[in-house]
Amino acid sequence: MHRFSVWAPLPRTVAVKLEDGVYPMQAGERGWWHAEVESAGDGSDYAFLLDDDPHPYPDPRSPWQPHGVHGPSRVLDHSRFPWRDDDWQPPPFANAVLYELHIGTFTPQGTFDAAANRIEYLRRLGITHVELMPIASFPGRWGWGYDGAALYAPQERYGGPQGLKRLVDACHAGGLAVLLDVVYNHFGPVGNYTGRFAPYITAKHCTPWGGAVNLEEAGSDEVRRFFCDNAILWLRDYHFDGLRLDAVHTFVDRSAVHFLEQLSTEIDALSLQLGRPRLLIAESELNDPRVVTPRSSGGWGMHAQWSDDFHHALFALLTGERRGYYSDFGSLEQLAKALTCAYVYDGVYSPWRGRTHGRPATHLPVNRFLGYIQTHDQVGNRAFGDRLRQIAGTKKAMMAAAIVLTAPFIPLLFQGEEFASSAPFLYFADHEDPEIARAVSEGRRREHATDTNWQSLPDPESPETFRNSQLNWAELDDPLHAAFLDWYRRLIALRREHADLRDGGLGLTRVRFDESAQWLAIERGPLHILGNFSRHVNQIALPGCATPLLASSEGVQFDSGLVTLPAESIAVVKVQPTSAAHET
Amino acid sequence: MHRFSVWAPLPRTVAVKLEDGVYPMQAGERGWWHAEVESAGDGSDYAFLLDDDPHPYPDPRSPWQPHGVHGPSRVLDHSRFPWRDDDWQPPPFANAVLYELHIGTFTPQGTFDAAANRIEYLRRLGITHVELMPIASFPGRWGWGYDGAALYAPQERYGGPQGLKRLVDACHAGGLAVLLDVVYNHFGPVGNYTGRFAPYITAKHCTPWGGAVNLEEAGSDEVRRFFCDNAILWLRDYHFDGLRLDAVHTFVDRSAVHFLEQLSTEIDALSLQLGRPRLLIAESELNDPRVVTPRSSGGWGMHAQWSDDFHHALFALLTGERRGYYSDFGSLEQLAKALTCAYVYDGVYSPWRGRTHGRPATHLPVNRFLGYIQTHDQVGNRAFGDRLRQIAGTKKAMMAAAIVLTAPFIPLLFQGEEFASSAPFLYFADHEDPEIARAVSEGRRREHATDTNWQSLPDPESPETFRNSQLNWAELDDPLHAAFLDWYRRLIALRREHADLRDGGLGLTRVRFDESAQWLAIERGPLHILGNFSRHVNQIALPGCATPLLASSEGVQFDSGLVTLPAESIAVVKVQPTSAAHET
Repeated sequence: MHRFSVWAPLPRTVAVKLEDGVYPMQAGERGWWHAEVESAGDGSDYAFLLDDDPHPYPDPRSPWQPHGVHGPSRVLDHSRFPWRDDDWQPPPFANAVLYELHIGTFTPQGTFDAAANRIEYLRRLGITHVELMPIASFPGRWGWGYDGAALYAPQERYGGPQGLKRLVDACHAGGLAVLLDVVYNHFGPVGNYTGRFAPYITAKHCTPWGGAVNLEEAGSDEVRRFFCDNAILWLRDYHFDGLRLDAVHTFVDRSAVHFLEQLSTEIDALSLQLGRPRLLIAESELNDPRVVTPRSSGGWGMHAQWSDDFHHALFALLTGERRGYYSDFGSLEQLAKALTCAYVYDGVYSPWRGRTHGRPATHLPVNRFLGYIQTHDQVGNRAFGDRLRQIAGTKKAMMAAAIVLTAPFIPLLFQGEEFASSAPFLYFADHEDPEIARAVSEGRRREHATDTNWQSLPDPESPETFRNSQLNWAELDDPLHAAFLDWYRRLIALRREHADLRDGGLGLTRVRFDESAQWLAIERGPLHILGNFSRHVNQIALPGCATPLLASSEGVQFDSGLVTLPAESIAVVKVQPTSAAHET
Repeated sequence: MHRFSVWAPLPRTVAVKLEDGVYPMQAGERGWWHAEVESAGDGSDYAFLLDDDPHPYPDPRSPWQPHGVHGPSRVLDHSRFPWRDDDWQPPPFANAVLYELHIGTFTPQGTFDAAANRIEYLRRLGITHVELMPIASFPGRWGWGYDGAALYAPQERYGGPQGLKRLVDACHAGGLAVLLDVVYNHFGPVGNYTGRFAPYITAKHCTPWGGAVNLEEAGSDEVRRFFCDNAILWLRDYHFDGLRLDAVHTFVDRSAVHFLEQLSTEIDALSLQLGRPRLLIAESELNDPRVVTPRSSGGWGMHAQWSDDFHHALFALLTGERRGYYSDFGSLEQLAKALTCAYVYDGVYSPWRGRTHGRPATHLPVNRFLGYIQTHDQVGNRAFGDRLRQIAGTKKAMMAAAIVLTAPFIPLLFQGEEFASSAPFLYFADHEDPEIARAVSEGRRREHATDTNWQSLPDPESPETFRNSQLNWAELDDPLHAAFLDWYRRLIALRREHADLRDGGLGLTRVRFDESAQWLAIERGPLHILGNFSRHVNQIALPGCATPLLASSEGVQFDSGLVTLPAESIAVVKVQPTSAAHET
């Protein structure tokens, strides 16, 4: 026996279709329908029939779509998986080093199980938390995953529900926490049928993907439940250690209790109940400390957020790019501000946005913020998906790594970054509908029409574009790539060894810089990170005797209180104060 | 010499047209244009020419539209008015009794000066603060004023800038504070040309009036400046004591600094600078305490808000109406909750809205909330604009007055309520464009299609509808109306005499009630307000000896610890505890 339930206030009749027949459902409260079917159980395939429409629709909360997003749903009993992680406790988030990966391109096989084979590699690199790009079922053979259609069902081609559980279990066995990127701000344009069931979307507000998710109108209680329950599914039934919430700035919610406040309330309660912490990390462009402020202080209670200002400041400085949002960045002063204030735009005018943006966040611990120089977005939204080393060269890519991994933020790496992967990360999709596929290709072309070489822009719908984005692990045998990996390993080891590098206080980071000479010195307690961004030698004086810890170039010279840095080099030193006088 | 300035990022050229010629303007920073014209000065008429468009447009910030909203603007030197209110200090808001009036219908003349003749009447009634419905220039001969076109220019037919200043000055001379209703959530559909100049409106969000005001996109700094400077104009140059902000729940603003937080920051600074307080009162349906929470606690810093829950609870109880939003109300329990918690919907499911609404506000002083039983909206949005006495009868209208004027909220009356005016307050407008006029008439008809007698629905565009809404002051000579006025006077006097009635603590108000017997007892310190809503006699026992203070019926009997109330009556008593034992 199985009890089927679905929220469907729009149709006037709902039935559940099983292999052995069609069963009418009974209307319950507030638009819910229920049916108990004796012959159904774990593994039964089913779909819903709405009014007189002969089309069988998959369950909006389908736990499993074994035949893809358009096919029937399958009943799944989550209690049957043989979890081995009873004693698992994730490492403290303050000590975290995150690694973002895309199941389809992380390995040649593109599956959960193949990814699990890389756990030992990641652990030896020093990674503590793996973050999976979205794995909710989407149409086609490949895609980034942000156009999910069945948000409760792991993509079958990746390995489906069982494969995902095996991966999470294996990560925990290997000492890695696992985070999942979830998309609650829209549904994919293909294969999502929720609009037939209920008002999940409102036309009153526009987002980059069409109407906004209905968080404040009639029926929004159930829409919010849909997403909260989705979060609970991953964190409770799939044992994920946390979620990354895509683009929360696109929510429109004027409710007295914001959706994210509701979500963090429920997830914090779940953590207490389950006896181990679950993290909520928001991608936010709002530059609003409210996002990561505790609920008790009027915030939304996210545990951390992605913050692009640090990325943009560092990237624009290293590459000299000034297109698009990089036009708002480029100075050492801005990088220094990012390192000490998290938000560069914290109430100042942003020419790119054409308005004042943000408010100060300096009262918050900096480990509320993630710091990175490569992510799926920052790499993948480039016309040619090129990585930092291709753009700025090996030396500057090494500098970037050193700054990210010694910065006061929680560092995040993007797959392959650590060995200077030659594979780009391109925008790829596999829309089955030729019209949508053409629209996507043309949209991409339009978006990058001003790029040089735009004629050779990879077609997102071409299989080549997907395959070119897969990591080539054979590169690890190449000395350059091996040396790069070693640089990352040593930097992560340094971060692990020195608590000063993980300290969460923004006020504890000091930055000196010289805009014209193009050098910068970051002080994190006794550790100083000294970077020379120029093409000339720079000397940086220190307030004490320096013990060298790491250097990106053999040409760095340490001479007691003076460090000499060749062009485009970086070093980390420990400074012993020359006098015992205390600063007050 | 006069320096003309206008924010106009949309056109490529801007010129100012004066009587003696056209003067090109120079492009300044961020879309501003400037021109210094030697021949212009106080009193000069002017308009702007944009690109090759031959149409001369009035200034979006026009201080004066002597020929109506379509005509030229006129330069106005605000420093020339002979203010007499140097020593003016408004009464403390905690002691306030507000009176909402509409200049066009408050007197037969429909002018600022005619309204000034009623100041002594209002003062003797016990009013402390007059609140003017919107007076910003709108098209046509009459209207409610919410479709303002020139937001900086007082309506010429009311008396223009000089008349308005005379009214405010006279109010202050007569001891009355003056508040102004301002509309920052949309522009009227006719006579507003701001869209030619700049992106004041965004199509990304829908409101009941079309696109939302642009508070978070490119150019929004200047849009916010436009409204903040408008607030400053009324509070500084017109000496208003405060503003009522229309329907703030229709703003869409995800900025890190919400528009209302910016506004309250600026207005609180202005109050300090000017040496007397200026109030900001929001109309909010959000049921979100953030609106009236101090900025230091993460709120928007409004000083008070309109809150409909108390109105709806009281109105539904008194009238038995259950249409529309009244379907969410009707019980004594809800009235009791409104009296002790302000929000009835404070995180509970609202069937009318189809979602959970609000969050608790019990930590806030109740004088952050206005309480009322009649307002322009609650009367005027009814099909026939009928007042409470017409709907529920004299006895219940007297009960309502007693509850409003002894409640823990800041009471607000609507013009004529105090003498049970027979004049309705109808929705009226005078749209010059016959197509828009027809659309308005038809819209009104559609809105009230389910009303009984909808065929006789007054046409909002008919002059009769406007004239019928004017107060008939001759009614004061009628004994019934005079008696009503006396009841209001005595209630306001009681409120003035007893600090317990003005005490701001929600926790200090206790309410007992009997849902089946339909009585309710509100305890405000030693004062008890005892209401019998039923058609039968009710007896209410008191925890001590009762001294009668006021009763709506001669039939109320006071017998030491027991008060006997005839059908539909109310009484206020002072209770002397029978024992000296203190409650803890």
